[in-house]
Formats: sequence, C-alpha cells, structure tokens
Amino acid sequence: MLKVAIVGGTGYTGAELLRILALHPHAEVAYITSRSENGVRVADMYPNLREHYSELIFSNPDAGELGSCDVVFFATPHGVAHGLAAEVLATGCRIIDLSADFRLQDIGLWEQWYGQQHGAPELVGEAVYGLPEVNRKQIADARLLAVPGCYPTSVQLGFLPLAEQKLLNGQHLIASCASGVSGAGRGTKLGSLFCEATESVKAYGVHGHRHLPEIQQGLARAAGEPVDLTFVPHLVPMLRGIHATLYTGEIDRNIDIQTLYEQRFADEPFVDVMPAGSFPETRSVKGANMCRIAVHRPQGGERVVILSVIDNLVKGASGQAVQNMNIMFGFPENAGLQTVALIP
Amino acid sequence: MLKVAIVGGTGYTGAELLRILALHPHAEVAYITSRSENGVRVADMYPNLREHYSELIFSNPDAGELGSCDVVFFATPHGVAHGLAAEVLATGCRIIDLSADFRLQDIGLWEQWYGQQHGAPELVGEAVYGLPEVNRKQIADARLLAVPGCYPTSVQLGFLPLAEQKLLNGQHLIASCASGVSGAGRGTKLGSLFCEATESVKAYGVHGHRHLPEIQQGLARAAGEPVDLTFVPHLVPMLRGIHATLYTGEIDRNIDIQTLYEQRFADEPFVDVMPAGSFPETRSVKGANMCRIAVHRPQGGERVVILSVIDNLVKGASGQAVQNMNIMFGFPENAGLQTVALIP
Amino acid sequence: MLKVAIVGGTGYTGAELLRILALHPHAEVAYITSRSENGVRVADMYPNLREHYSELIFSNPDAGELGSCDVVFFATPHGVAHGLAAEVLATGCRIIDLSADFRLQDIGLWEQWYGQQHGAPELVGEAVYGLPEVNRKQIADARLLAVPGCYPTSVQLGFLPLAEQKLLNGQHLIASCASGVSGAGRGTKLGSLFCEATESVKAYGVHGHRHLPEIQQGLARAAGEPVDLTFVPHLVPMLRGIHATLYTGEIDRNIDIQTLYEQRFADEPFVDVMPAGSFPETRSVKGANMCRIAVHRPQGGERVVILSVIDNLVKGASGQAVQNMNIMFGFPENAGLQTVALIP
Amino acid sequence: MLKVAIVGGTGYTGAELLRILALHPHAEVAYITSRSENGVRVADMYPNLREHYSELIFSNPDAGELGSCDVVFFATPHGVAHGLAAEVLATGCRIIDLSADFRLQDIGLWEQWYGQQHGAPELVGEAVYGLPEVNRKQIADARLLAVPGCYPTSVQLGFLPLAEQKLLNGQHLIASCASGVSGAGRGTKLGSLFCEATESVKAYGVHGHRHLPEIQQGLARAAGEPVDLTFVPHLVPMLRGIHATLYTGEIDRNIDIQTLYEQRFADEPFVDVMPAGSFPETRSVKGANMCRIAVHRPQGGERVVILSVIDNLVKGASGQAVQNMNIMFGFPENAGLQTVALIP
Repeated sequence: MLKVAIVGGTGYTGAELLRILALHPHAEVAYITSRSENGVRVADMYPNLREHYSELIFSNPDAGELGSCDVVFFATPHGVAHGLAAEVLATGCRIIDLSADFRLQDIGLWEQWYGQQHGAPELVGEAVYGLPEVNRKQIADARLLAVPGCYPTSVQLGFLPLAEQKLLNGQHLIASCASGVSGAGRGTKLGSLFCEATESVKAYGVHGHRHLPEIQQGLARAAGEPVDLTFVPHLVPMLRGIHATLYTGEIDRNIDIQTLYEQRFADEPFVDVMPAGSFPETRSVKGANMCRIAVHRPQGGERVVILSVIDNLVKGASGQAVQNMNIMFGFPENAGLQTVALIP
Repeated sequence: MLKVAIVGGTGYTGAELLRILALHPHAEVAYITSRSENGVRVADMYPNLREHYSELIFSNPDAGELGSCDVVFFATPHGVAHGLAAEVLATGCRIIDLSADFRLQDIGLWEQWYGQQHGAPELVGEAVYGLPEVNRKQIADARLLAVPGCYPTSVQLGFLPLAEQKLLNGQHLIASCASGVSGAGRGTKLGSLFCEATESVKAYGVHGHRHLPEIQQGLARAAGEPVDLTFVPHLVPMLRGIHATLYTGEIDRNIDIQTLYEQRFADEPFVDVMPAGSFPETRSVKGANMCRIAVHRPQGGERVVILSVIDNLVKGASGQAVQNMNIMFGFPENAGLQTVALIP
Repeated sequence: MLKVAIVGGTGYTGAELLRILALHPHAEVAYITSRSENGVRVADMYPNLREHYSELIFSNPDAGELGSCDVVFFATPHGVAHGLAAEVLATGCRIIDLSADFRLQDIGLWEQWYGQQHGAPELVGEAVYGLPEVNRKQIADARLLAVPGCYPTSVQLGFLPLAEQKLLNGQHLIASCASGVSGAGRGTKLGSLFCEATESVKAYGVHGHRHLPEIQQGLARAAGEPVDLTFVPHLVPMLRGIHATLYTGEIDRNIDIQTLYEQRFADEPFVDVMPAGSFPETRSVKGANMCRIAVHRPQGGERVVILSVIDNLVKGASGQAVQNMNIMFGFPENAGLQTVALIP
Repeated sequence: MLKVAIVGGTGYTGAELLRILALHPHAEVAYITSRSENGVRVADMYPNLREHYSELIFSNPDAGELGSCDVVFFATPHGVAHGLAAEVLATGCRIIDLSADFRLQDIGLWEQWYGQQHGAPELVGEAVYGLPEVNRKQIADARLLAVPGCYPTSVQLGFLPLAEQKLLNGQHLIASCASGVSGAGRGTKLGSLFCEATESVKAYGVHGHRHLPEIQQGLARAAGEPVDLTFVPHLVPMLRGIHATLYTGEIDRNIDIQTLYEQRFADEPFVDVMPAGSFPETRSVKGANMCRIAVHRPQGGERVVILSVIDNLVKGASGQAVQNMNIMFGFPENAGLQTVALIP
C-alpha cells in the first residue's frame, strides 16, 4: 500500500481526499496534519468518516513523518507548499499540490495575481500541471505535481478541442461560470454563511479572478498563442458543482464540433461528451471524478456554446489529485475513483 | 377603488398579483377566475393570503363579470388572452396581459416562436409593450398592455443605456442568464421537482428560447438596427430571481459607463444603478419591484460586463404589471410596490 | 413621527427592524449603532434597504443620542441591555429589548442559564414580557419591555389555550421544534456555513437550551403551576421559520380543542387558528408577523398534537417588537406589520 | 455474478439500486422494467449512470425474463408485487420487495391502512421482514423478503435496545420525524415541486401514516406486547435523509443507556452508536448505508431522547435491500455498500 500524507486536512479538499482514499485499493492515509486541530481524531471532525478512520489523528506537521510517506498531498492555502516542498522532495517523497503554488509557470505573473513573493521559484521549472487530458506522460514522471484549479479544469477541458485545432485563434472568448459554495472553502467568512448564500445568485471577481491567468496559460499552450478571454464567476446556492458556459466567436458551420469533441475525448475515462443537444447538470457529477461536456450552436449559427460541468471538489480538486497519483504511481487511472454521482 | 379582475389566478404570477394588490391603496381584486379551481377559496389555496382574501373565490371565467371590472389581468399561458381580449376590450375594460400574447409586434415572428397561429392579429397594432423605462407615455394611454417577460426585462434594462447611445451597433452580444425555479411556473413538471432542481445548475433553451425575439425586438428599437445576440438561460436552485450577465464587444475606454447608466436611470424609481465595483445579488430584490444594475470593465479593458438582477415574479412579472396599472390609471407609480426585499 | 433608535443594528434582527420600520407610518429610525461598522452606511451593508435608508449611518453608541429618541430597541447579544438600560430609561426613553436580558423574572434562574451575573437586577421587577396575546395591558404601560424569544413565542402560543384551561396540569409535555438557520444569527460560526447547514437536519441543545426556562415560566403562569416539559430544537436547512410540534398527555376526547383554540384567539390579529386537519407550513408566515396554529388528535385519540409556525425573525423577534411598540405608543397594533408572506 | 432484475426502475429507489449495484462485486443488473419508459436507455434517463450502464434498456415486464434472473427487486408502488410475486417465486427466483406489500403480517391491518384488498395473502406467512439487525437468520433463508420502510427503519433501530429490555412497556412513546423530499418519490405531485417544498417545513400524516402500523408491529415484537406510539412525520427542504427524534416515558436514571446501545449494536456493521452527547446529522449518512444513533437524557432526567438518522434511499430503502441480498446469497454483508457519505 502506498503511504499517503495530507498536509492541511481539515478543509473541504482535505476531507474529500480522505473520502476518496478511504476506498482506494492501493493507497492509505498514514499521516495527516493540522495545526489548529492537532490531537483531534479525524472521525470526530468528520462523522461520515467514522467507519473508515477510527484511529487517524491530526498532527502538527513534522518533516520526518512527511518524508516517511511515499507521497504528500498539500490541501493548504497558497504559500504553504512553497515553504515545505523542497524539504519534502529532498526525502525522495513526491508531492501533489492542490493549492495554486505551482500552477503558473510565469513566476512574475504568479506574484502579480497572488500579491506576494513566490516562495520556491527554483521548483517551478520541474512542476507538472496535472491535467491528465493534456499532460498524462509528464505526470507519470512528476516529482512535483500542481493540481489544476476548479474553474480552470472545467474551462480548459471545455475549450480544449477547439483550441488545439486553432479554431479559437484571434477570437474573443467568454467563460461565464457558476460555482457551488464549497468552492469558497470551510473558512468562516460572512459570504459563506447559509443565510448569506442561499436563495441568491451573484457574480464576483469580475475585475480579476486568480483562475484567469491559469486558464489563459493552458489555453495559450493549446492554441499556440495568447488567448483573449473574459472570465466571470458566479456564486450559486448549492454545495458542489461548477457549470461553465463557454462562448466562442464565429466558427465555420461546416465544422462538425460534436464529432471533434467525441474524438478528442474518446479515450479519456473522466471526460464524457454528451449527445448533441444535451444540457449537462452539475448533479450528474456530484461526488464523481467526471467532466461532462455538451456543445451547441445556438440557432444553428456560427457561434459555439460549450457547456462543461464538474464537481469542484472532485474533478476540480481532490479527485483529480488522486487521478494524478494513480498515473504517477502506475495504478489503474480509475482506482478509488469509481463513485457514482448521487441522483437525487 | 379600482376594480381588478384576474384571469388564471392559480399560478405563481396570479398569486403574486394577489399578494401585491392586497395592500394596494387604490385597487382591489373583485373577481378571479380558474377553471380548475372553480369554487375554491383563494385563502384555502394560498394560506399566506388568509388574512387578506377571506371571501374571494375562484370562478369559471365569465365575460360579463370581467367587463364589470376596470382592468383585467391575464396571468395565463399564451393563447388565452388572444381569445378573450377583444370581448373584454369591447366592454370598455382595459387589459394588462402578463402572457406573451401581445409582446411581439411581428405576427409572423410570434407564430414562428410559439408554434401556433396568432389568435388576435388585429389587436397587435395597439398593444403597448409595458416596459415603463422606455414606454411610459404610451403606457398611460394603453387599452391593451403587454407586460414584458422576465428575462427580457432584466436583459433590456441592462443593455438599454448602451443601445440607446448606439454603442452596441455591429457588436455580437451575449446574455448569460440564470433564473430561479419559479420561472417555470406552478405546473407539475418533472424538471420542477425539488429533487430534480435542487443542488444542481443546468443550461436550457440554447437552441432558441422564446424570450430571445422579445429581447431582440426591444434592443433593436433602442439601437435603431437589428442586434446580434446569443442568449443562454440557466436554471439555478432558488425560488425567485434572475441574474443576467451581459457581455458587450469593445467599447472605447474613454466612455464613462458608470455615469452613463446613472444618468439614464436617475429618475427611474425601479431601477437602481449600484456603485462602481458592485455585485448585485438576486436576494437584494426578492419580493421587491426593482432592477439593480452594476457595470464593470474586466481588467479595465474595452469589454463591458453588465450585471442586472430582478425578482422574476415581481419586476419580471406581477410587480411590473401593477406598475403599468398605476401608470395607466394615474396612481403614484409606486402604489402597492413598496415591499422591502427580505434579507436574509 | 416616533423617533426610534436601534442598538446593535448589524445582525439579522436589526436588519429586520429596519425592513419593517421602513414602511411604518408613525415611526422612523433616527439613530442606529454598531461598534464594528461605525461610519458605514446602512444602505451599503444591506442592499435591499438602499431605497429606504440612503442616509442612515451606523454610529458608536452614544447615550445622549439614544436619550433623544422616544424608544430604543436593543438587538444585541445578552448582557448589553443590562449595561445600558438604566441610563436610557433615566432620560425618559422607553426600551424594547429583543435580547434575553429581561425575559426571566427569576434572577437566579437567569444567571444559571446564561452563565454570568445578572447586570441589572433592580430593573427585572418592572420589565414586562412582551407576548401581546397574554400581556397586552401591561405592555401598554411598559417602560422596559422584554421581547420573547422565537421558540418561546411559538411554543407558548401553541400550548396557551390548553394551559389556561388547566388541561395540561400534571402532564409531561414535549416540544419538538425546528428552526431555520437565521435563528443562529449573522455571526460567522462554522455550523452556520452554507456547506455545513444545507442538505442536513440535526438536533441540538437537548441537554438544555436557554429558551427552556423561558417557556416554562410562561406556561407555569398560564397553568398556575410548574410544567414538566422536554424541549428539543432542531436545525433545518432554510432561512426563516420555526415549526413547533407540541405533544400533550391525555386530554378527554369530549373536549373540542378546535373550538377552544378558535375562541381563545378570535380577537388576536396575529394568531391564525387554521381549519381542523390543516398542516401549517412555515413559508405561510415568511416575512409576516403571524403565528399559524393547527390542532390534531392523532387517530382520534386522547393525545393532542399542536402545530405552530412563525417566522423566527418576525413574530419571533422584530415583528413582535414592533407590535409591542405599537401597543406601547397607542398606534394601531398592525401598523407597519401588514407584509404578506411570500409564496413561493 | 448474481443476475439481478429490477421491476419499476424509474423511481428514486430504482435509480438508487442501479447506483449501488453498479459497483457491486458479485451482482449485476441484467434486466430492468418500466412500462412508461419501455425502450429508453437507463443512461439517457439517469446521466450519472452513463459510465456504468451504457447498454441497459428499460423493458416492459416479462415473466420469463424475470424468472431467468436470480433475484428480483420490486421498486414499485404497493400492490404491484402482490400481483407478480407468486409467478416469480414459482420460477425459483427470490424476491426482494421494497414496497409495502409484504411488510405487515396482519392482512386485515394491511387492508385497512392501504385501502384495498390484499393481493397475495397466501404469501404473507413466508415473507421475512428485512431488518437485518433483528432478523438476520431468517433473512438468509428467505425466498420473499420485505424491505422495511424508511421511517420504520430509523424509528425501530432507535427504540430497539430499550424495547428488547422491556423498558418501554406501558409507556406512551413519541416519534417526531423529518424526511427529505425524495421520500415522496419521483411522481410529479404539486407538493414535491421545488417552489412548494423549499424554504419551508410542514408536518403531515398526523391523522395516520402508513408507516405507523409497521413501526408498531416491529416494536411489539421486541417488547413482547403492544406499544402506544404517536408518530408525526415532517417534510423538510433537503434531498435525502430522515431524522427521527424519539421520546420515551420515564426510565430509571441508574440504567446506563449509552452502554446498552453500544453493546446492542456492537457487531452491527450498519448501525453506529455515536459518543454520548452527540447530535447525528443526516448528512453524515448521505448516500451511505448507515444508521447513526445518539442517546440523551435531557437535563439528566428520567426521560430519554434518542436521535436516529438514515438516508431514506439507502438504509431506508435500496441500500438495506442490497444488504438483505448480500445476506440471502452469502456475500459479505457490506459488498457494494461501502460508499462514504458526502460531506459537504
């Protein structure tokens, strides 16, 4: 069994790692850290895990303990992995970082969007961006893996086939996205209160959301040139789920978009191109490591609208992290990731 | 007191008319019809109205009774007002139609989108489109008033100042909108079930929603030429509210959009231009006859994003209907419309 | 116009006072305090109030300013009114306290349940418990009024007719109640997060909730002897509303409970005894100052089940506070309290 | 692989059987029926199942096809299994009936509560009530198994240890329960609409719910005498979950209830007695085949309050059905039932 450590296990992505790894046939969580909950049993904090982690206890992070594991997941705010990564890697342990610390290859850009100095610039070069649908080979060999953000996963997968065919070049793109409240994390912020978030929809981050440069980086790689993108995220009253509605410029009506998408993702276990005319619902991926995509041409015109849904905590975070782990350690890519979405 | 009749009072827009008119100082509901609930007390169907309508009973529609009122509201599916309007108007009674029957001036277009023959083409010419922010003078004299749809209200008000300044001409516009479930009405459809609609977001009607030609009609009037618009509605898990996110093409950075909007709506009692940088929440208009708008230029660029929220049952239907009634009968425009939105 | 001050206006009961008083014909909010939001415009904090309080600003509390008003509402955590009440009363200003500070007449009991010393024991004697259905005459003359808690309002009104008839004496009573999340206030507590509270139900406070002694005090007054009550509150995923399900011991089948309730509350403007066989929904009072009650005898037996619903922020807090104000100052009891509940 | 048939697969319990069996190591769904959806692919109706049932198609029920399977699940309204059971059993196939058809041993009682003649009285004698915590041995040999109802599962498990110790004899018991909306099924009833069910709580069935005689039957068996029970179900705005709050009469304070429960369920894989003082949340079992129980003595008195939560579609229906199948066919009892509840 692969020995797994989780740094920062009290947030929602940490809890989701615990949920997924509880049933993983080849990995087990051997060590979990939390400064604030040091000494608390995981089972006491997350009652859904009582049957699965009766003994596991949150500890203060200790480099020696981390180094004794095979892989360390960082489920921490940005900046934390910067500080610990080099030390962990030096022990021979591999890292899967769910935070934003190593997602951007342009260090200046990272510092501009995150408003602080980059803490581990020397590691950026070897960090692999963990979108398996693009980088599967590099992921297999990665020592330091950066798990993509939730919006970036849904938006990149949605635009990818068009971008790779250079069909988006020179266009102005729009990504109008909606996220469930779990995307804001488990912090006790006013806007995350039930009474503030339920029965309402609002946009946010229009002036500039940190996922924008990450999306642009990925699309530029695929397109071979910079992309012009307007990204507007919205908060909607549900627990989990991202719904990305993507608008392109004009694309020749003779191009069969449906077939293009089906072929591009034919061998991808975690991308589902739905039949023409479909409207993917976020609940169809609730709890599941899956991205469902449908493509439309409104009124049969030249504009294309792509609808892409994921569970922000699974394919948008912890599920994708485990998918990366499976690739890195040679396990079947779907090991531990077969949960069926709950409907209703 | 103005004598009001409501045809089709059992749906959500009918119930909302009852709620608003219960406290109207100059109007009272004298007659209400429903074939399916003939003989049922309004108070037994809507317990929130027990204090206010202890005697009112649903009746089978009777032309004589309708004609004895001063104004008839149609809160019916499309097609019904077509059949009754001429008869009602002949009695001297005025009509406020919440359905789509008289919203489109182009009869062929109506027939194309609604998939049936137009039932009263001879009345279309005199029908007034009841968006007070555009048509206040014509509304005052209208015999036959067509209340705008919910999406069309939020989208038109959001684009209006730019369209009127010809700043949208030649552009490709996008309206990415979200609606609460009450927009689907009180019919027992599978997709409206709690267990189907909650904890999920989905797009619908991408191929063509009936509100699209209505929006295009209004924007073309303002712009003086046809507009190119992609409209994608989404269903989100909340009771009430529409959130419209509107994307323009490039608009000269030197144009002060904030001031343009503030000036355009300065005298409008039911449009609120929020301070620069704001993110209007749908809950800020829950139960209130109000449209709140904020304008943004993402990353300070040339694209403009307008955020516009309404309560689909109030400013998007019954509240706007009463606002039109107030204008038609010379009451203060805000009579009966002062409800403060509930937060939380 | 009556000049109203609100101490602690940033919480949900404060916001609700602002909402209700915005349309009150005889009172206006002249002064509002908040230490944390000193200098902030009310309209900037609560966008639903933008039309109604464009100028009002939160201030640090100042005794002189408070004393210049006619009445001061305390919408504060317990303990605050203890410290300020004497000073305010000395100015001739009257007090309506929404907190728990003056609800219990037994000072020792208060100290036991609230875990701190009582801060104004000399005022307890003159404090009037503001349940108008019981104390209307004393309320009219009160200088210091204690607004009942939310659970105590729904439970006392539900048991009251039986208690007054001595039909509950010697019985073991059960109050199994459910509350929306707004009952927990606007504080940023983990359990109040959307992601913690939605899609779940849980009991709490079974060992002892502070509303228990308040309920027991009221029922004992009505019954003329102490009552034996088990009280279990539950948290349910909705914004507003309390549903109290009350279970009695055996009551003679020959007693017509329905008529007893109808007669007891016949003249009460804010208690609605529903027809026999009804099931009151909390949404039927959402935003309204109303308690709806239905009585049942399961399987026609000797046990009685009473169902009682209120909006915890209205009849359970701010609406009842304004109802008390109306009685205290000789206004019509329903002034400002005619909002119709929103359905849907 | 065990060949499984499902009769009536389009409802929520049918969909849940599909979800659970998709990952079962020893069973596969070979045949599924639906008259209304004959010819429709399961994957087209339930997009969450697209990866798992790409070929399975709903068929009109055919006795021969059913008989070719090893076990038939009935996920149908009451009355259907009555008509088909004898024919299916005659083929040697075993039956697991999720409907109420064979839950009551008293045929007259069944006819009284279900308002129709019993359709298979000759089979009642051999039907086994599938509550594994009580009947595991009989279940192993059952040909015809009746899966308990959702409320009956949570209420019986909650009272069971006390009933078996004869500690409830002569008492008046109360079960005040709340259910998510999925308990009402996938039928398009007005009360199940999002706009009717969300943001509200209501009681129902106080006059008499069909689960009452089932609960009484089970508790009487355990207690050795009839029990006096008042049962009030409530509808709360969530998808899944039942929360049962159970109230006893007086029980000697010297009896250690916590230990009694822990010992009674020590070997039960799907009953979790939580630590003293706990408040089980329904979300802690969302999607999981588990009943979590906590016991309380309010204010340390003689009354006992038991809190018991399940997912109505899992331990309250389809999960318990698969648990029974595992026992009947000698599989590990937890095969296919290891899903971890989703939090958040």
